Amino acid sequence: MNINGQPYHTIWLEGSSVFMINQNLLPFEFRIYEARTYRETCRAIITMITRGAGAIGAAAGFAMAQAFMEGEGNSQYTGHARKEIEATRPTARNLFYAAERVFNAGAVSTDAAVEEALRVAQENIDDALKIGEAGNTLIPDGCRILTHCNAGWLGFVDWGSALAPVYKAHREGKKVFVFADETRPRSQGARLTAWELLNEGVPHAVVPDNAGAHLMSKGLVDMVIVGADRIAANGDTANKIGTFEKAILAKEFGIPFYVAAPLSTFDFSISEGSQIPIEERSQDEVLYQAGPDAEGEIHHIRVANPGSSAINPAFDVTPAKYITAFITEKGILKAHPEDLSRLGQS
Amino acid sequence: MNINGQPYHTIWLEGSSVFMINQNLLPFEFRIYEARTYRETCRAIITMITRGAGAIGAAAGFAMAQAFMEGEGNSQYTGHARKEIEATRPTARNLFYAAERVFNAGAVSTDAAVEEALRVAQENIDDALKIGEAGNTLIPDGCRILTHCNAGWLGFVDWGSALAPVYKAHREGKKVFVFADETRPRSQGARLTAWELLNEGVPHAVVPDNAGAHLMSKGLVDMVIVGADRIAANGDTANKIGTFEKAILAKEFGIPFYVAAPLSTFDFSISEGSQIPIEERSQDEVLYQAGPDAEGEIHHIRVANPGSSAINPAFDVTPAKYITAFITEKGILKAHPEDLSRLGQS
Repeated sequence: MNINGQPYHTIWLEGSSVFMINQNLLPFEFRIYEARTYRETCRAIITMITRGAGAIGAAAGFAMAQAFMEGEGNSQYTGHARKEIEATRPTARNLFYAAERVFNAGAVSTDAAVEEALRVAQENIDDALKIGEAGNTLIPDGCRILTHCNAGWLGFVDWGSALAPVYKAHREGKKVFVFADETRPRSQGARLTAWELLNEGVPHAVVPDNAGAHLMSKGLVDMVIVGADRIAANGDTANKIGTFEKAILAKEFGIPFYVAAPLSTFDFSISEGSQIPIEERSQDEVLYQAGPDAEGEIHHIRVANPGSSAINPAFDVTPAKYITAFITEKGILKAHPEDLSRLGQS
Repeated sequence: MNINGQPYHTIWLEGSSVFMINQNLLPFEFRIYEARTYRETCRAIITMITRGAGAIGAAAGFAMAQAFMEGEGNSQYTGHARKEIEATRPTARNLFYAAERVFNAGAVSTDAAVEEALRVAQENIDDALKIGEAGNTLIPDGCRILTHCNAGWLGFVDWGSALAPVYKAHREGKKVFVFADETRPRSQGARLTAWELLNEGVPHAVVPDNAGAHLMSKGLVDMVIVGADRIAANGDTANKIGTFEKAILAKEFGIPFYVAAPLSTFDFSISEGSQIPIEERSQDEVLYQAGPDAEGEIHHIRVANPGSSAINPAFDVTPAKYITAFITEKGILKAHPEDLSRLGQS
């Protein structure tokens, strides 16, 4: 996608370094971060310099390839690296999927590992584009779409999942409007989704997470599209905290609720959502905020009562019954366990 | 209630000045603001130095009394003042109720207006205490309560509405735990509710607004109690944006959802919620945040993508069917239009 007219990927491998858009600085500063070792790439995943299901997958694949380049045939080194990579973010399915593929390829040669990591990243782009094409068929002209968190191209290598259909529709000349949920506590909607949409020229507004029911009750939302971090075999979907709320609201108001994700996000080893581990992140993400003042200087400020503590579950699990359909690179799939299980066998 | 062991009211009249806790500075600084004229009191309502249904009502009554003291019998002055007072915040019922009572009393004498304003404030305290006693009967030992925004004593002259039952239960020695919704965009939950609860020693945690469905689905929330800004004759309830979301979630998970409010919050001239005007506030409340850095210096920072705009409806209307019951100074009332209409005639 474009940044000031320049085409970019979110993350890429060059030699033995992984380059990525530093998402912790966005939207206030655009800078590329270079991770020279697999450990630096792990660190970048943990600190969310790169984030989003697809981008994390690509990062994990690249990190695994870096470990093979660094380990020079030492299987203890690469085995340990795989564990470290898998421990960076516990919820994202794509991370395990990518690390495993590159790890297995590495059994042949380091070159094979690197090629496999590049393949994982390219597939991520191809899948996202197909998700965009499939999702675009659901979007009528004039459609008003609510999305939560950032499942745009920053969360992938390119295109995105939830936003890919929006970009396809917009480039085709359809009128679309996006309500971007702020998505507290990390505000990925207000910061990243809004930044992406502005760069692509898509009309949008940032909305407080609290405004969903109000907007829906007024008939202002035609559909909800969100991404996913992990989808169980029965269709239960782990995604950014607050997704479950929007799904319940959409059901209450009879608004279609779509989950856009590549098949690599499905985890057929897990029968239902209750088995998906939910990452509990630092309470400081709720209690503090960072951003620039009028002079552009970044400050970290307290936004809650000093002395009070907070809880910060990073994800929730939306049961399949609230999901109208999945938008995947294989097309639109109903959230029926039987249909999904057939996918797992293909 | 107590601040560092000292008893305080949220707002009071002394001579011709209205004194109030400056809620824009809380929880980072505790300071009393003095409004010397009715116009300064209006300004304090508009800028939310004082806020919350009950406190706004008391402020409006005091402002009206100030206008009579300033106007010295000039009915044009007081008539104009009433309009100005009523224009400060369009959603709060108590504002109109208090301004009208004091305006009518002022037809007799300025002294009568002042006395009526003091009576409005005292009734606010008495009603809140009765709400606390009635609500306390609903709270079992060990209860975990979710609340939204601040309907504590800062929103009243004392005690509060949604939090009054919590304070009564806590002072009786019951174990209670409060999940305080952060309540974006103004974060009254993270700032004010958490500050109140800490001062009263009530165990609590700040939670992102997005975490409601997650907490409820895990069985961690036993009941929801919220306040109200205006209640229509059929029980439809206007309250802080996001209240409607929590009501839908509570219904989905079979959790009781209570609205605590004095009868002065009911507006029997309005048959249903769709007639309640919803205040649209500045988008800057969503796009910027303010708070102290580690050295205590307050900064205003941008928390959303520069160039993107936001929408900021301040309230939503929860239809009566989602409300388990109202907690009032007359006891617990089911949200049936017939029951409520009888109240309107009493």
